[in-house]
Amino acid sequence: MTAKPSPEEFTCPLPLRDYPNIVLGHGAGGQLSDELVRYLFLPQFQNDPLAHLGDSAVLTLGGQRLAFSTDSFVVRPLFFPGGSIGELAVHGTVNDLAMSGAQPLYLSASFILEEGLPIETLQEITAQMAVAARQAGVTIVTGDTKVVEKGHGDGCYINTAGMGLVPAGIEIGPDRARPGDVVLVSGTLGDHGMAIMSVREGLQFESTIQSDSAPLGGLVREMLAECPGIHVLRDPTRGGLAASLNEIATQSGIGFELEEPRIPVDPTVAAACEILGLDPLLVANEGKLLAIVPPADAETLLATMRRNPQGKQAAIIGHATESHPRLVVAKTAIGGTRVMTTQIGAQLPRIC
Amino acid sequence: MTAKPSPEEFTCPLPLRDYPNIVLGHGAGGQLSDELVRYLFLPQFQNDPLAHLGDSAVLTLGGQRLAFSTDSFVVRPLFFPGGSIGELAVHGTVNDLAMSGAQPLYLSASFILEEGLPIETLQEITAQMAVAARQAGVTIVTGDTKVVEKGHGDGCYINTAGMGLVPAGIEIGPDRARPGDVVLVSGTLGDHGMAIMSVREGLQFESTIQSDSAPLGGLVREMLAECPGIHVLRDPTRGGLAASLNEIATQSGIGFELEEPRIPVDPTVAAACEILGLDPLLVANEGKLLAIVPPADAETLLATMRRNPQGKQAAIIGHATESHPRLVVAKTAIGGTRVMTTQIGAQLPRIC
Repeated sequence: MTAKPSPEEFTCPLPLRDYPNIVLGHGAGGQLSDELVRYLFLPQFQNDPLAHLGDSAVLTLGGQRLAFSTDSFVVRPLFFPGGSIGELAVHGTVNDLAMSGAQPLYLSASFILEEGLPIETLQEITAQMAVAARQAGVTIVTGDTKVVEKGHGDGCYINTAGMGLVPAGIEIGPDRARPGDVVLVSGTLGDHGMAIMSVREGLQFESTIQSDSAPLGGLVREMLAECPGIHVLRDPTRGGLAASLNEIATQSGIGFELEEPRIPVDPTVAAACEILGLDPLLVANEGKLLAIVPPADAETLLATMRRNPQGKQAAIIGHATESHPRLVVAKTAIGGTRVMTTQIGAQLPRIC
Repeated sequence: MTAKPSPEEFTCPLPLRDYPNIVLGHGAGGQLSDELVRYLFLPQFQNDPLAHLGDSAVLTLGGQRLAFSTDSFVVRPLFFPGGSIGELAVHGTVNDLAMSGAQPLYLSASFILEEGLPIETLQEITAQMAVAARQAGVTIVTGDTKVVEKGHGDGCYINTAGMGLVPAGIEIGPDRARPGDVVLVSGTLGDHGMAIMSVREGLQFESTIQSDSAPLGGLVREMLAECPGIHVLRDPTRGGLAASLNEIATQSGIGFELEEPRIPVDPTVAAACEILGLDPLLVANEGKLLAIVPPADAETLLATMRRNPQGKQAAIIGHATESHPRLVVAKTAIGGTRVMTTQIGAQLPRIC
């Protein structure tokens, strides 16, 4: 055991010093998560693929480009309308790989189980993982199981890591957005986060809000076949559209201007957000993607996306601009504009 | 959410029905762990690389063989004599890759943090991971962080997944042991498990028992350079030597005969085991390997191993036999024989 680092040795102390302890917001995909990555993990593990901060690392191995990604899943409850922790664990990693333009191929699955979890529950979770993997065209080839004492863990945590191949000629990354680029989303936003929230809070609406948890590899493949020059792909999970666009704005050094009325939000989700005082653009999605593309490709891509079941409500929602670098601005329905910042901590903890 | 499976749909109900709920033993690397893998995970995720049950899956991707492995780490305490959860998280996965004969290259790191964990502790854990990764020659290229509410988790759980390249001509697998093969270990057994146990139980000995946590990629590379025809490599982690040899015996359909006095055990570890009524051959190691090799290679390999710091106490401890398939037998110091079975549950839970 090495000696504890003295405060002076702290890599970049300022932002982290405000929070001497981990808070829920450090896991919520907002500014606190970002600070943990930038000021703690990056300085420790410094290397190029990591510093790229894409949804997966893209590695060149024997002349081939391999995407590699990981995600742990701690969602509560384990089962929710439209999905379960098992499906989420497959979709989350498959989608991270797809956002590099990779064809997802293999997954690992590692379980941290709480003593007392009914075997039947584990059976159900793994059955749903198996179905999700088949649908996504990936194989779960390796795994691990740990058990922690009752009272630790929370029934079941799952980690998946995945790898896939990036086809030749595809260059996708969060630093590749250019002024003039068009921003598209593949469908309605906020469904996953609000599905979880509704179950937790016991909210009843006329129709049940379903998680949008879905694999996006097929949609991405069709999009790239039509428009191989896509600049950025991202699945707006924790922190929602706002976090994803702000990250891309920072990494590409450009701004975004959105037309808020064009952003698709399911009316029930909008109503639930209204009641709870949440912004659907900051709520997590698990089956949606954001594409940033050269203007000439936008309409073709929109048509391609709408032909796929995962993209049938796709929409063009704005564009990249050089007029306000690193700032995401939305024009509202009544003609005003608002700056769309990333949340500091969590709107909703433990949603994936 | 799908309907719960009825008891009739249960894939292979018999052994699992004895335990309707997860118990600590399901994570201990013994018979219960094995049943969970064989009767729950394998039938769900069925595919060849997984069914091979090696320490990593070996996948052919564009003409190259890639090893892929994952492990979650839930050890308590987070820091212990000779290591920490951070080092363990690197060594564990690096070693699983090396046991396929692969050169470990890249790791992912995923953290499940408990609200309230001091940032300084996380800083210390990641600093030790970074050092361990550099020493093992691997790069941590992608990651994830989740935060769970105070009272869940246990400070910090870490998952690592890793990939590496298997050199051409190397064919290592738990089903490749043949009668007559010689069994070697790279050093003393039981150090890691007893280091953890001593801290937990507050046991004091003349010298502190140190975990043997160490990366084995370098040792394996030297061994394969000298003897590319090694049949089986395995790091005897949870469940110790007994679990590893019993698994190999089952998968290769052969038996093993060990000379117990030849098995290296540190005297302090032996004393601690004596006090606690534990068998060091069932206790976990985190920096040792087991090699099963054709008899003609044994002496050369032993000499090669002893030249490496990780193998300086290497020893030939027995051989494979066809006289009692699937049974591991040890000749004791007083000339008797005992059957070395795998434990059902846990000698020590939460040791990695």
